[in-house]
Amino acid sequence: MFVERIKTEGLAQLSYLIGDGSEAAVIDPRRDCEIYARKARERGCRITHIFETHRNEDLISGAPILAAMTGAAVHHGPHAAGEVAYADIVGEGDSFSFGNLRLKVLETPGHTDDSLSFAIYDDNYGDEAVGVFSGDALFVGDVGRTDFYPERAEEVAGKLFDSLQKIIALGDQANLYPAHGAGSVCGDKMADRDFSTLGYERRNNPMLQIDQREKFVQAKLDEHHNQPPYFRVMERLNLEGASPVSPSMVPPALDVPEFEAVADKAVLVDVRGIAAFLGAHIPGSLALPVDMIAAFAGWYLQEDDALVLIADGVTQAEAAARNLARIGYDDIHGYLNTAMPGWAAAGKAFLSVPVIDAGEVRERVSEQPEGWTLLDVRDRGEVSDGIVAGAETIYVGKLQEKLDGLAKDRHYTVMCASGARATIAASVLLRAGFANVGVFLGSMGAWCAAGGEVVKPS
Amino acid sequence: MFVERIKTEGLAQLSYLIGDGSEAAVIDPRRDCEIYARKARERGCRITHIFETHRNEDLISGAPILAAMTGAAVHHGPHAAGEVAYADIVGEGDSFSFGNLRLKVLETPGHTDDSLSFAIYDDNYGDEAVGVFSGDALFVGDVGRTDFYPERAEEVAGKLFDSLQKIIALGDQANLYPAHGAGSVCGDKMADRDFSTLGYERRNNPMLQIDQREKFVQAKLDEHHNQPPYFRVMERLNLEGASPVSPSMVPPALDVPEFEAVADKAVLVDVRGIAAFLGAHIPGSLALPVDMIAAFAGWYLQEDDALVLIADGVTQAEAAARNLARIGYDDIHGYLNTAMPGWAAAGKAFLSVPVIDAGEVRERVSEQPEGWTLLDVRDRGEVSDGIVAGAETIYVGKLQEKLDGLAKDRHYTVMCASGARATIAASVLLRAGFANVGVFLGSMGAWCAAGGEVVKPS
Amino acid sequence: MFVERIKTEGLAQLSYLIGDGSEAAVIDPRRDCEIYARKARERGCRITHIFETHRNEDLISGAPILAAMTGAAVHHGPHAAGEVAYADIVGEGDSFSFGNLRLKVLETPGHTDDSLSFAIYDDNYGDEAVGVFSGDALFVGDVGRTDFYPERAEEVAGKLFDSLQKIIALGDQANLYPAHGAGSVCGDKMADRDFSTLGYERRNNPMLQIDQREKFVQAKLDEHHNQPPYFRVMERLNLEGASPVSPSMVPPALDVPEFEAVADKAVLVDVRGIAAFLGAHIPGSLALPVDMIAAFAGWYLQEDDALVLIADGVTQAEAAARNLARIGYDDIHGYLNTAMPGWAAAGKAFLSVPVIDAGEVRERVSEQPEGWTLLDVRDRGEVSDGIVAGAETIYVGKLQEKLDGLAKDRHYTVMCASGARATIAASVLLRAGFANVGVFLGSMGAWCAAGGEVVKPS
Amino acid sequence: MFVERIKTEGLAQLSYLIGDGSEAAVIDPRRDCEIYARKARERGCRITHIFETHRNEDLISGAPILAAMTGAAVHHGPHAAGEVAYADIVGEGDSFSFGNLRLKVLETPGHTDDSLSFAIYDDNYGDEAVGVFSGDALFVGDVGRTDFYPERAEEVAGKLFDSLQKIIALGDQANLYPAHGAGSVCGDKMADRDFSTLGYERRNNPMLQIDQREKFVQAKLDEHHNQPPYFRVMERLNLEGASPVSPSMVPPALDVPEFEAVADKAVLVDVRGIAAFLGAHIPGSLALPVDMIAAFAGWYLQEDDALVLIADGVTQAEAAARNLARIGYDDIHGYLNTAMPGWAAAGKAFLSVPVIDAGEVRERVSEQPEGWTLLDVRDRGEVSDGIVAGAETIYVGKLQEKLDGLAKDRHYTVMCASGARATIAASVLLRAGFANVGVFLGSMGAWCAAGGEVVKPS
Repeated sequence: MFVERIKTEGLAQLSYLIGDGSEAAVIDPRRDCEIYARKARERGCRITHIFETHRNEDLISGAPILAAMTGAAVHHGPHAAGEVAYADIVGEGDSFSFGNLRLKVLETPGHTDDSLSFAIYDDNYGDEAVGVFSGDALFVGDVGRTDFYPERAEEVAGKLFDSLQKIIALGDQANLYPAHGAGSVCGDKMADRDFSTLGYERRNNPMLQIDQREKFVQAKLDEHHNQPPYFRVMERLNLEGASPVSPSMVPPALDVPEFEAVADKAVLVDVRGIAAFLGAHIPGSLALPVDMIAAFAGWYLQEDDALVLIADGVTQAEAAARNLARIGYDDIHGYLNTAMPGWAAAGKAFLSVPVIDAGEVRERVSEQPEGWTLLDVRDRGEVSDGIVAGAETIYVGKLQEKLDGLAKDRHYTVMCASGARATIAASVLLRAGFANVGVFLGSMGAWCAAGGEVVKPS
Repeated sequence: MFVERIKTEGLAQLSYLIGDGSEAAVIDPRRDCEIYARKARERGCRITHIFETHRNEDLISGAPILAAMTGAAVHHGPHAAGEVAYADIVGEGDSFSFGNLRLKVLETPGHTDDSLSFAIYDDNYGDEAVGVFSGDALFVGDVGRTDFYPERAEEVAGKLFDSLQKIIALGDQANLYPAHGAGSVCGDKMADRDFSTLGYERRNNPMLQIDQREKFVQAKLDEHHNQPPYFRVMERLNLEGASPVSPSMVPPALDVPEFEAVADKAVLVDVRGIAAFLGAHIPGSLALPVDMIAAFAGWYLQEDDALVLIADGVTQAEAAARNLARIGYDDIHGYLNTAMPGWAAAGKAFLSVPVIDAGEVRERVSEQPEGWTLLDVRDRGEVSDGIVAGAETIYVGKLQEKLDGLAKDRHYTVMCASGARATIAASVLLRAGFANVGVFLGSMGAWCAAGGEVVKPS
Repeated sequence: MFVERIKTEGLAQLSYLIGDGSEAAVIDPRRDCEIYARKARERGCRITHIFETHRNEDLISGAPILAAMTGAAVHHGPHAAGEVAYADIVGEGDSFSFGNLRLKVLETPGHTDDSLSFAIYDDNYGDEAVGVFSGDALFVGDVGRTDFYPERAEEVAGKLFDSLQKIIALGDQANLYPAHGAGSVCGDKMADRDFSTLGYERRNNPMLQIDQREKFVQAKLDEHHNQPPYFRVMERLNLEGASPVSPSMVPPALDVPEFEAVADKAVLVDVRGIAAFLGAHIPGSLALPVDMIAAFAGWYLQEDDALVLIADGVTQAEAAARNLARIGYDDIHGYLNTAMPGWAAAGKAFLSVPVIDAGEVRERVSEQPEGWTLLDVRDRGEVSDGIVAGAETIYVGKLQEKLDGLAKDRHYTVMCASGARATIAASVLLRAGFANVGVFLGSMGAWCAAGGEVVKPS
Repeated sequence: MFVERIKTEGLAQLSYLIGDGSEAAVIDPRRDCEIYARKARERGCRITHIFETHRNEDLISGAPILAAMTGAAVHHGPHAAGEVAYADIVGEGDSFSFGNLRLKVLETPGHTDDSLSFAIYDDNYGDEAVGVFSGDALFVGDVGRTDFYPERAEEVAGKLFDSLQKIIALGDQANLYPAHGAGSVCGDKMADRDFSTLGYERRNNPMLQIDQREKFVQAKLDEHHNQPPYFRVMERLNLEGASPVSPSMVPPALDVPEFEAVADKAVLVDVRGIAAFLGAHIPGSLALPVDMIAAFAGWYLQEDDALVLIADGVTQAEAAARNLARIGYDDIHGYLNTAMPGWAAAGKAFLSVPVIDAGEVRERVSEQPEGWTLLDVRDRGEVSDGIVAGAETIYVGKLQEKLDGLAKDRHYTVMCASGARATIAASVLLRAGFANVGVFLGSMGAWCAAGGEVVKPS
């Protein structure tokens, strides 16, 4: 009997391969799902069932794809926001066996109406659950967000409270297997620890310390979460069933002329690191370092955008294409297989972004040069903890839609917590035609380390 | 914060890489220990500490080797049966931090005098242990054996009882991380499940249901465990510190003449599957299928034996050499890179082993042909549950030393539970000059499936 | 500029990835063709062209599959035995460039009417060809077979002679890149060396030493080659364009009951080694060791046969499924994940094959026991060099269709060169209901090593 | 019979594994030599001999290390510049067999006095050589350099001429296997093609078109090659026998405080890409992008320097450590596992390098601002083809030793062919305390593409 966690970095999504004897099941497979088939084979198993804890909004489900690959059936909860075209509906108390491993379905709505949890039992000895797959209901250190039905906000927060009681009732001894870990867009207070038990969470998870339903509901109503626009696309695809990863997931190498031939029909996505973008990049490109794609691509890219990548080699290009495919961006025409010196030596244009440090920011803040703005692109929660006096605040994800409120002839120095999101934001401004854009590298971290003053936003 | 289980198949040994931030520790590394360094690197960590739960008797510890490789210090418990030449001694209450992960030492003697457990805590939130590394004190479904000090049998069984109370007191919420899983020679009632919690074990582990110390001690005194002779070598090496795996761990390929040149100075070890050995093997070779090496090699091979392998290709030869190295057999001169048809076509001698099924055994049992013996090589526990009437019983591990009690001119049909250990036993008889040896394939399993009668041994 | 050889063991097929800069081409891709895409990526290239030297008869071409995967066009020669549905036709003198690498088409019919060779040039310096892809026209140490058009035998042998002159005229300096190496069914005199030059072959290849066209034609007419029945299927599929390898190429693991549930609707194929089959196998199974599948499966399996495998673990099952898929056998329901002791212990029937050595054969040959036949299954060429006196000869590939000439109540001892093909033949007899079948392990090799007499067949 | 090329990128070094049957040999193994043992095993061979074509000056030989690992003997040529402590001396006509593959020694001095070539023959058929390992005597498109004995320059160039005649006499049909490919510091006119034949080179290699000995000698005397100072260390180590790669070859991950703790006792080597260094780097660090280490590290690093790396993740850190180890730099204390935004956010100092393009350079050249110098760091051959008017020229490798000729208060814009070497040079100036240093990205390539004028250097 085994439970194997398969973690998707970037999305911080946790999926699971479980089984006993020659049979296995997968909980919440991701889109590039050959990994489950391979791991099952290595264990001498075949996949006979696929379970979804809920309809995901932050990534493409691999359930219909893995089902086609293996012949296994997909099981999904009732009351989804539409017909789940590829799944059988299961509900409270349904039960499935894999050798001596038994899986029992619990309906645990709240995050979504169709949310399920799956308790597992060892038929060899003992009666209590040995573990529970809690989906987006219960995380290590946090609980699921309940902001997807604004008009039913109180109702669904209350449902989540009830669902959590049902999960906790499985007993302190049960291992906890949630659908996300720290770094996910599905919760920002998750602990940076992949394992826990119901016992540990019952006593320590801050949200489980609230024992009154109404107080819990109020706490949920007070939360703020971002909803990148690509969530809508994921929701639709995860009812219809998305297509397998396309053969173009591994993008073709392009030399300079080949790159130029496709560049004007595509969005240029620079997936190199932050410092490389600052040092030299191709004019018009969007900065999306490979490990920031999962969190930020969905704010800027449209469902049908053709993309062409700028990457530091084939390994990075592949990783970027994989990260993009997991959230639905398949149409990648290739990547430039030439580094910036070669690009420039071919006589092509490049840009670098002026970078300043805390000392220089402090000077400017005190001098307030004409036409200069310090633009802070952190999110609402971070901003509420304090800003540099005078900074203008727009969340990096919302920057594109709020460009009209900014002036192209001003000089913007962009900051965030470290300079990483600020670089993405700077690329958004530069693409929109802002000419005078710089980055405060180190940003709020460096500001505080240098003893800079922090004020409450107005 | 992470805990990663590294399982060594065959030995069913469980070791762990744990860490947080840029620091990591290893619990109970095995001899071929590059895997820990590699996995730590992949997580962006470096190994700064090594912990041993006790001095192992069934395998070579990699602690001194990994220490030399990484510069990390080794930590071992007090009261070992000699000086642990390569380790610092730690005891009750000592504590170590890796980022926000804190490890606390518990002295939990019983299995050995130097046995430690290690509780881990998450300094980010919560006060209780998130897990415990229990060494050979507590397993999933069983507890450690206490038969290593026969003259102190009651005392050490009592100590184990006390140690288990100390571990259980960490709380139901703690994950359990033992040093062995099902299949280990360190316990035969372990559950075939790699994960559990203290809560689950507290309520369900049969040995933890015994709540009186004296009853627990008596239950331990009633157990019977095998002690293969190589245990003595492991115990010595794990005080002195064994050498790294030798470069010859990957054995050189030998063609027929090269094989013959080394064969008469070495023990021929046939690591192919059971059926292949039965079909055709080289006279004088010992049957030790690659996945049975961990459990049985230590009964037949001496510490300094030179070995030469017969294997189905390089992958199997490598796996065999690795399994042998883990229990101290390094002197491998190579493997025959020619399959049996090629060997025979070169004019070399071969043998096959007559194989009979349940029907034929039933006939012989009823006819009792002159000079024929059914030899059952299962262990004491299995035999006590019942045998085929008239069978002689000698445990496969003890066969070599009990050959004097058998007659070379008799016809022996060997059986076990399935025919696998019987084939090892048959090879032991054939090597010793017994000419008339066959195997009952299917053995007790087939006998019972065919409705054969089972009687209590006299 | 690079040329990378990709060798498919078993089929001894050689395919090539060539390229320069960011562009690459593939010559004669095999069916499981993701390897070319991967290797091209690792070199920072994308595949823009696919070339076939001819329509293959011994394996499934991956050209249409790789074309769909990469978007590259397929190029094939004129005069194929039907329309090549997936390819553009190219002919003498057509030319393609990849960076500074230039490929020029030569029409070189003989083996087939559509056979092409491809000379490559380095546009950086030098005018002569740096290499030539010679398909099945010229091998290292041999030339292509010309027995596919029996009614045009002289004509096509003459065409091959002319084609070879054209190839040789490219100059001694050219590297030779043929489509097959030693071990292929497409020629049995190839050297066991993967590399050569036109200069070396011009002076040393036996067939190129024949300088008169009519003598060359006669030599070709005197050759004898086998044509397994699956060749017809390959020829059809390689006009139509075969489908990609099916998802079931990696067969699911089956436990004993699951295996039995599918076994009676399928051909049982035992892909373990020869000795294992001899030691114990499932009644009714066909012996096809994994490394003999390419050469022998096509004699026994029908295009639409459902298969179920008996394998020593998942790695061997995967390799077998891959080998089967390359010659068109996709319908594999799974593999038994239980070794013979476990199978027998579940009360299931098994068989072993009596094995005898040269000494025992010599006795029987001299005694000629009633009802006994020594059956030699080697091919015509081997048999013509001499047999054991009295042996009956039927080529292993033709055995199935010649069973009527044998008597089920006789006792057959089967031999070949080593005992490997003899074991396949024994399994064919056993499946057909012959009850008394044994194998002479070591066969002709052991016979000669023991000084046995060899006589010319009558 | 096989020949497998193992290419070491960066050094562009070519080594070879050759063999037949169960025996294999290695020609010119590199320091990290486990790859040869692994590849031999995969082919079912064991390594029995190691051959060196000459004492290498540009990399550490793995011959003594592989010898210790496998037990194989090392064979080296006579007349080395000292005793080769680990090798047997072989000479003209000595011969070794591996199955049917035969290797024959040719003395081919010139590049060094101890240079050997090895001709190989196929004992199955044919009398001529099938290939030749030509070391640093003959390359694809070039011949070896002869500048290592300045006082004997004519003599050794003449010896090389004679050696080349001896090699060419092996015949047009022989494959050519040199010790280096394009990109090596051992020759700058090699073709970017890994394969050739003696026939192709005889007709096309420019140096082989010179048929008079004295003209050939003069051509060699007219060449100019760089000799980085680390060559002296390699020469010594390759007589003594260097140690195996150290366990620290894979550097430990360091967080910011750990990095700072070792930084002031070590050379900071930034192995990220050019653009990343330009964008943000740690003050005092030397820019050595991972793929430029082989060619440039030996100019700046001393034999015993302690190093600490700045890398984009563990994969790049490993590659850098491997590249450094191959040329003798083992003492690597770790790598910073934090990217520049995180470093800056921790309040640490960083620098960026101003980058300008061809347009801005053109303006400055015409305006000649006070105190500004355009510094061209290309090598002698490139410079002789033309420079930007007014540029000062110092080869990047010699910059460190010529710093005294530059003024720290001047403003330097550094250029090369593309901006890559210019960035290394800029880092050398910044480390030396030059405050006003920028890079012309695109450099001579961009200058020419923009129609800039090129003048002959004075």
